[in-house]
Amino acid sequence: MKTVSENRCFGGVQGVYSHSSDATGGEMTFGLFLPEESQFGPVPVLWYLSGLTCTHENAMVKAGAQAWAADHGIALVFPDTSPRGADVADDDAYDLGQGAGFYVNATEAPWAPHFRMWDYVAQDLPTLLAAQFPLDMERQAITGHSMGGHGALTLAMAHPGRYRSVSAFAPIAHPAASDWGRKQLTAYLGADETAWARHDATLQMRATGFDGPVLIDQGADDQFLDLLQPEALAQAMAARRQDGTFRMQKGYDHSYFFVASFMEDHLDFHAEALNG
Amino acid sequence: MKTVSENRCFGGVQGVYSHSSDATGGEMTFGLFLPEESQFGPVPVLWYLSGLTCTHENAMVKAGAQAWAADHGIALVFPDTSPRGADVADDDAYDLGQGAGFYVNATEAPWAPHFRMWDYVAQDLPTLLAAQFPLDMERQAITGHSMGGHGALTLAMAHPGRYRSVSAFAPIAHPAASDWGRKQLTAYLGADETAWARHDATLQMRATGFDGPVLIDQGADDQFLDLLQPEALAQAMAARRQDGTFRMQKGYDHSYFFVASFMEDHLDFHAEALNG
Repeated sequence: MKTVSENRCFGGVQGVYSHSSDATGGEMTFGLFLPEESQFGPVPVLWYLSGLTCTHENAMVKAGAQAWAADHGIALVFPDTSPRGADVADDDAYDLGQGAGFYVNATEAPWAPHFRMWDYVAQDLPTLLAAQFPLDMERQAITGHSMGGHGALTLAMAHPGRYRSVSAFAPIAHPAASDWGRKQLTAYLGADETAWARHDATLQMRATGFDGPVLIDQGADDQFLDLLQPEALAQAMAARRQDGTFRMQKGYDHSYFFVASFMEDHLDFHAEALNG
Repeated sequence: MKTVSENRCFGGVQGVYSHSSDATGGEMTFGLFLPEESQFGPVPVLWYLSGLTCTHENAMVKAGAQAWAADHGIALVFPDTSPRGADVADDDAYDLGQGAGFYVNATEAPWAPHFRMWDYVAQDLPTLLAAQFPLDMERQAITGHSMGGHGALTLAMAHPGRYRSVSAFAPIAHPAASDWGRKQLTAYLGADETAWARHDATLQMRATGFDGPVLIDQGADDQFLDLLQPEALAQAMAARRQDGTFRMQKGYDHSYFFVASFMEDHLDFHAEALNG
């Protein structure tokens, strides 16, 4: 593991590190905020998965999460959204290839060898974090924005017992029925839709739900509402009587200004599950 | 005036606007955060002046100020740091020309016609803001980072009665004695150092001080300490018995992670002067 940068931040340290990943077969970069409390012992961890076109950096500098994570003594992990590099397949579209890993393990060419973000976030990076940093991996929670909200919800529901709570900002809620999803799931996983099921939060909510509390925030003026399909997830949550809250936020769009506006609520929500 | 963008943010609106400026003789862009309270009447204003290489956007997306401004019902103005455009003089160095206006009215070629950021921030933009937005211009305060901290302090001391409070994050505190200053003041104002005096916070603190409270935060691990010369300003504040606080913050560097870490304190400080 290599230290890219470390900056003092809200009494803790905002670091950026890179490492060679078995899952993606290449060098990966991530951000990690460690609160002051980590000097005295392992602290709980909140994963933040980012959206299309983002790197590890966007949320780290724009979401304002460190202020509230510091208040609660919680670490924040900011993984990248895909493998990177000249030897990694890519596409001209912003929503496929590099910057658009969709948190799946690709089985189709040309994506299969590197695009394994599901394993990267679920196995590779947690193993590294547990070995290298003072983190209590028994206390994990997960959140994300847009494609990252999709990743957070699907990873959480597929790993019962691992994440104590899950939240999402404007998640891609039903990718199997959306142009933000069908294109990517076909490219990465092939045309057989049975392989898609665990990568669709609405389908997973219908099938199993989540074994802890859920918080979803969605801007009512989001320019991508038709692609995100929040109503499908809200209906599935209601039908399952899922422990959770779905909030439609008047006037908010898809930007980081929306994410930052409700970050305190999400940190409070996860802190109750992690520290309560 | 043209609306570039408006995003709902912490119950208010983060806007970006552009307008033709008499002071700089060209199109200027600025950010303005209006808190929810502005729907019901004029709100007080905190100016945030940015540092070298920044535009109106950096602090707007990275400093996390809107969270605390919303708490206090205060508007935030984020001006650009220089005139811009193909017809505006520039220099290859990051610290001269576009992105490096130093908050002065240039008198020397080739800078003189456009580089009038002092008048832009002190006259042009306030006039526009007062005419276009629900702002209480009787309640203004000013802050900034690095070159912007220099701008905030020098503007505040040169305009007694205008700003109720002034603060700065790692300001360029003594430019007349620093490589971040001598080069720019020579280029913009000429070699006669008597013209520099009102553009040096330490010299102005020695000469007049500020007619309100002052808050300075400086990272002890700032990589630019020798250029910033915070000790000169701290000594001048002490000698004058200036109403104010100078804090050397252990472990912090020059980045926005430092700025964001203490933004809540600065908003609390200004809110007491603006709303108290």
